[in-house]
Amino acid sequence: MTYCVGILLDRGLVFAADTRTNAGFDNISAFRKLHVWERPDDRVIVLLSAGNLAVTQAVVSHLTEQAEKPGSHEEETLYTATTMFQVARLVGKAIRSVKETDGEALVKTGDSFAVSFILGGQIGAERPRLFQVYAAGNFIEAGPDTPFFQIGEHKYGKPILDRVANPDMRLGEAAKMVLLSFDSTLRSNLSVGMPIDLLLYNSDTLKVERVRRVEQDDPYFKKLSEDWSKALRSAFSTIEEFDI
Amino acid sequence: MTYCVGILLDRGLVFAADTRTNAGFDNISAFRKLHVWERPDDRVIVLLSAGNLAVTQAVVSHLTEQAEKPGSHEEETLYTATTMFQVARLVGKAIRSVKETDGEALVKTGDSFAVSFILGGQIGAERPRLFQVYAAGNFIEAGPDTPFFQIGEHKYGKPILDRVANPDMRLGEAAKMVLLSFDSTLRSNLSVGMPIDLLLYNSDTLKVERVRRVEQDDPYFKKLSEDWSKALRSAFSTIEEFDI
Repeated sequence: MTYCVGILLDRGLVFAADTRTNAGFDNISAFRKLHVWERPDDRVIVLLSAGNLAVTQAVVSHLTEQAEKPGSHEEETLYTATTMFQVARLVGKAIRSVKETDGEALVKTGDSFAVSFILGGQIGAERPRLFQVYAAGNFIEAGPDTPFFQIGEHKYGKPILDRVANPDMRLGEAAKMVLLSFDSTLRSNLSVGMPIDLLLYNSDTLKVERVRRVEQDDPYFKKLSEDWSKALRSAFSTIEEFDI
Repeated sequence: MTYCVGILLDRGLVFAADTRTNAGFDNISAFRKLHVWERPDDRVIVLLSAGNLAVTQAVVSHLTEQAEKPGSHEEETLYTATTMFQVARLVGKAIRSVKETDGEALVKTGDSFAVSFILGGQIGAERPRLFQVYAAGNFIEAGPDTPFFQIGEHKYGKPILDRVANPDMRLGEAAKMVLLSFDSTLRSNLSVGMPIDLLLYNSDTLKVERVRRVEQDDPYFKKLSEDWSKALRSAFSTIEEFDI
């Protein structure tokens, strides 16, 4: 399993992804699920991935190869697309292409082509945008009504986002909220695991400047988790008791 | 879908169940999922049900018919069993009997025999006990390490239980916690719906004295939900912001 969150804010974008992958409980590894393509002063593109690791890695490699060695027939790539909508289409196309190559064999061996992606970023003067891309290669875009997307094991960490997420949050505030959402998820689902990759993107910087891997023993995360437990318990005690 | 919770406390038991059932989004009804068998001063038995409504209702009817008109061959019933363990076995047997009758036909029409139950109560001088009974008719019992069981849509409402549940809580405190757990679930999953049936059982009373249906417009629940949102947001603001 996996847990990834992307949030679209007035001030920019926040992305977070865990790093645990597992093929059964007895086969756990760490793999990066937060992928970045950057051309300073031109574009920042971030892709979070969930689902079959072979498929998501193939999609990422496909996009990277295409971007770095564009074919002779002037195909659009992550580095030449002029809008994030075009980038979302490229991601969708890459998913379909991997499906065409591997999909049938996967289904034949009883696996499924289950993947999903969160895509966000900014290109030139266009505003930052955030998408969720499905296994079929189609996608939806976040707006002020629902400023965040989650993929993977999203249920445990959703209540805090539902209650607190707001487009006018500061990036650090949103990152705090996302880490609390991860804290709830990590407590309840063993298949979501530390470290967590975090990326905070400030609108119009067109640069990746704030990125960090939060490790198991990260002092901020430890304190966050403890403080939140305490704050929750104290909030709980302020609420009037139920009586029949 | 459904959401039910049962908690085993030092002072007794708390049960809660939503009432929504749905056969598709366009076919929603309310059905009771909290079932009680009581013989004052002798026993209180509570059963919460999730899954295929035809199956869970058949199990409940089976247990009730058996208890009220025991067969000629002196079979044990909910009213003659001498321990809650024996009652859990009876529930398991009832599930297997319904499976024998209906299971094959269900599978043939593409439905599944997916049900689960939370069973709790007290018989005579035995301590109150709490069980989770599976579709196969087998079951597990709650203890101080994990004093609660959830069935149905359990993920959204689990973080609050994980953080706050404790066997030494007062019943009203535990009921407050359970209603908060429902509040989180109701916000995120449309297939869980009000009203909520609540039952608080004080150890050794051997009577059902505290039972209530919490309706959509219940003033306590409304205030609880608002106060909790406020308390969470204020707890959130006390936590140090993340900075990279």
